[in-house]
Amino acid sequence: MSFIKVGVIGVGNMGSSHIQLLDKGQIEGATLTAICSRNESRIEWIKNHTEGDMQIFRDEETFFSESGIDAVLIATPHYSHPELAKKAFAKGIHVLIEKPAGVFTKSVLEMNEAAKASGKVFSIMYNQRANPLYQKLRDLIHSGELGEMKRTNWIVTDTYRSQSYYDSSKWRATWKGEGGGVILNQALHQLDIWQWTTGYMPKRIHAMSSVGKYHDIEVEDDATVYVEYENGATGVFIASTGEVPGTNRFEIIGDRGKIVVENEELTFYQLTQSEREFNKTYKGGFGKPEWRKIDILVKSENANHASIIQNWIDSISKGSPLLAPGEDGIKALEISNAIYLSSWSNEMVELPVDPDHYYEKLQEKISASTFEKKNVTNTTLDVKGTH
Amino acid sequence: MSFIKVGVIGVGNMGSSHIQLLDKGQIEGATLTAICSRNESRIEWIKNHTEGDMQIFRDEETFFSESGIDAVLIATPHYSHPELAKKAFAKGIHVLIEKPAGVFTKSVLEMNEAAKASGKVFSIMYNQRANPLYQKLRDLIHSGELGEMKRTNWIVTDTYRSQSYYDSSKWRATWKGEGGGVILNQALHQLDIWQWTTGYMPKRIHAMSSVGKYHDIEVEDDATVYVEYENGATGVFIASTGEVPGTNRFEIIGDRGKIVVENEELTFYQLTQSEREFNKTYKGGFGKPEWRKIDILVKSENANHASIIQNWIDSISKGSPLLAPGEDGIKALEISNAIYLSSWSNEMVELPVDPDHYYEKLQEKISASTFEKKNVTNTTLDVKGTH
Repeated sequence: MSFIKVGVIGVGNMGSSHIQLLDKGQIEGATLTAICSRNESRIEWIKNHTEGDMQIFRDEETFFSESGIDAVLIATPHYSHPELAKKAFAKGIHVLIEKPAGVFTKSVLEMNEAAKASGKVFSIMYNQRANPLYQKLRDLIHSGELGEMKRTNWIVTDTYRSQSYYDSSKWRATWKGEGGGVILNQALHQLDIWQWTTGYMPKRIHAMSSVGKYHDIEVEDDATVYVEYENGATGVFIASTGEVPGTNRFEIIGDRGKIVVENEELTFYQLTQSEREFNKTYKGGFGKPEWRKIDILVKSENANHASIIQNWIDSISKGSPLLAPGEDGIKALEISNAIYLSSWSNEMVELPVDPDHYYEKLQEKISASTFEKKNVTNTTLDVKGTH
Repeated sequence: MSFIKVGVIGVGNMGSSHIQLLDKGQIEGATLTAICSRNESRIEWIKNHTEGDMQIFRDEETFFSESGIDAVLIATPHYSHPELAKKAFAKGIHVLIEKPAGVFTKSVLEMNEAAKASGKVFSIMYNQRANPLYQKLRDLIHSGELGEMKRTNWIVTDTYRSQSYYDSSKWRATWKGEGGGVILNQALHQLDIWQWTTGYMPKRIHAMSSVGKYHDIEVEDDATVYVEYENGATGVFIASTGEVPGTNRFEIIGDRGKIVVENEELTFYQLTQSEREFNKTYKGGFGKPEWRKIDILVKSENANHASIIQNWIDSISKGSPLLAPGEDGIKALEISNAIYLSSWSNEMVELPVDPDHYYEKLQEKISASTFEKKNVTNTTLDVKGTH
C-alpha cells in the first residue's frame, strides 16, 4: 500500500494537534513529510515534539513547489485559507482546510472554483459532522420521521473563553486578523451542523451581536440570531463565550414531533399522527396529539478531528465519499456573513449575501479599527478537549 | 368569623372554574353570593352545577349596585377588565381580575389609578406566582446567589391549541374580541413570571410574530421575542400554540452560574467564584471557573388559581400581603404591547410603550380587520389541567 504524502501549513493551536496525530501514525495510509511555518519557536516545538522525518519550510511558495507532497492540511489563520488552497490546487495538491473556509464568501467562491477545476479532493475540518449524534439527528430529519420542519433553536454557549485565550495571539478576535468572533470561530461548527442536519439554509436573518461584551476584544463575543426558512419555519441561534457553565441544546420541531439534543443525548418526542392533521379534525378544544418519548441511544464523539483527516485520506486513496466536502464550507460562512451584516446594519438580511457587498463592509470595519491589544502573550494553546 | 361576600362576573372557561371553587367552599372566609352573566345557557349551567344560594344578575349595573357583594372576581373577556374593575372600585368593592389586566396599557393605567383611589384590595390572577418553583427561582435571583444577570431564555411552546379551541367562541383570537393571540393570552403568565422572578423589565424589544400560522385566526399563534435589559443583559422569549409536544424551559444566566427550570424541576449550576473575576485573573487560555450542579428540591404546582383567590380573600380580611397585586398586571401587558408594536413595525421598540400610540395602532388593526370566523361553536371548555 502506498502512503499519501501529507504536508501541514500553520503550526498554531489546531495545526500542532494535527501534526501530532499524523506524526504518531494515527491516520492510516498517510505520512507526514513536510511542514511549513514562519514562526521559529513553533519550528523548534516541532523538532522537539515529532519523531518522523519531515522537511521544514519557512516559505509557502517553496513548500508548495518543492516538498513533493500529495496533500496539504491548511491550519493557518482564517483569512489565508482560500489563498493557500488555491495555490495548492494550482500545483495539483489535495486540500483539507481548517474551518472557517475563509472570512468572506467572495474569496471562498474563488477557492471552490479552483477546487472544481483541479479535480483534487477538497475537504474542510467540520469535525462535528463525524459525531454519530449529529449523523443520527440528520438521518431522523432527512428520512422524514420528524415531518415538515416548524422551528429550530440552538443555544450554544458552552464555548467559554477567558481574556487569556484572546490574548494568546495578536490576530485573534480582531477584524483584520480573524475577521470575526464567536460566530466565525467557536460557533461555526454549529452553524454548519444546523444547516447540515436540517437540510435548510436560512432565507432571512436578523441578528444582534455584542462587541467585546465580556472581553477586551474588537469583535463579538455574544450573539442572538433569528432566522426564517423558505418553508415558513423560524429559528433562533444563540452563541456566547462569556457564560459558565454554558448550554449546548439544539431543539428541532417538526409536524411529527420534536428532537432535543442536549448533554450529548438525543431525545425524540414522536407524535402518533401529524399535528397538522390533528388540528384539522380534532373537536375537543384543549386536546393534543399523542406522543411517545424515545431516547435514541447513540454515542457522542465531539473532538474527532482524526475522523475527518482519515476520511479525506480515504477519499484520496480509495475514492470514499467525503463527510465534509470543502465546497460545503461556504454554507456556514454565508450564515456567518449574514449575521454580521445584519448586526452592523440592524436590519433583516436576505441570503445569500452579496459577496462584494460583504467584502466592502468588512474592509470598512478593518479600516475603521483603532483597537490595540494590550497584553499579547504569543502562546500556543492545547486544544485537547475543545471542539 | 365573618365571610367575605364574593360575586363573579363572566361565566366562560375561567369564570366557571372559579365559581365551582367558591361554591364548593374551597376558599376559606369567602362565600359566593352573586353571579353576573348575559348568557342564558351559562346561567342554566350555573343553576345545574352549583349548590349555594346565590343571586343571578343579567346586567352589570344592577350586579354592582344591588348584589351587596364585598368583592368581585372579574372573568369576562379581556377588553372589559379595566372598565368593570373601575365600576367595582367606584362602589367600594374589592377586585380580583383574570389576566390579562386589559388589552392596552392606557385603560389599565386608569384602572390602577381607580384602584389606588378606592383603597380597596386589588389582585390579578397571575396564578403562576403561587407556584413554589417560581417562588424559589425568584428567591435565588433576588438573594444575589445567581449574581448579575447576563441572559434569559424562555421557550414556552407547551400551550398547544387546536382549531377547535379557537372556534369555541366568537371573540377568541380576534383583534376586536381578544386583542391578541398567544402572547396576550397563553404566554402572558410567563411574561409576568419572566419579569417577576428576574426583577428586570426589558428596556428594548425586537419581536417577530406570525399571524394565523398554524390556525385560521387573525392574531399571532407563534412569536419570537428578543429583549435587551438596562444592565446590558439580553433575552429571548419564544411562544407558540402550534407545537406538540411543546417545551417549557426557562434559563437564566448570571455572573455566578446558571439556573434552568424545565420539566417542573429547578437546577442551579453554581460557580465557586464570579466569572467576571475569573476572566480578569486566569492565565491558562481554555479554562473555566469551577461549578457544581445543585438540584433544588421544590414541588411545582401549576394550576393553583385557588391560592390566588385565597390570598386575595386573606388580604381583604386579614391584611395579608398580596402575591399578585393588581397594579402589577400592567408589567406583562407592557411587554406584550411592545411585542405587538415591534412585530407590526418590524422595528426595535423602547419600553415603556406610549399608551396612546399603542391604543391607536390597535384601533387600526381592529378597523382594518376583514376576518370572519367560519365555524364558531360557542362552547365552554373545561380548563382543568391548563395553566
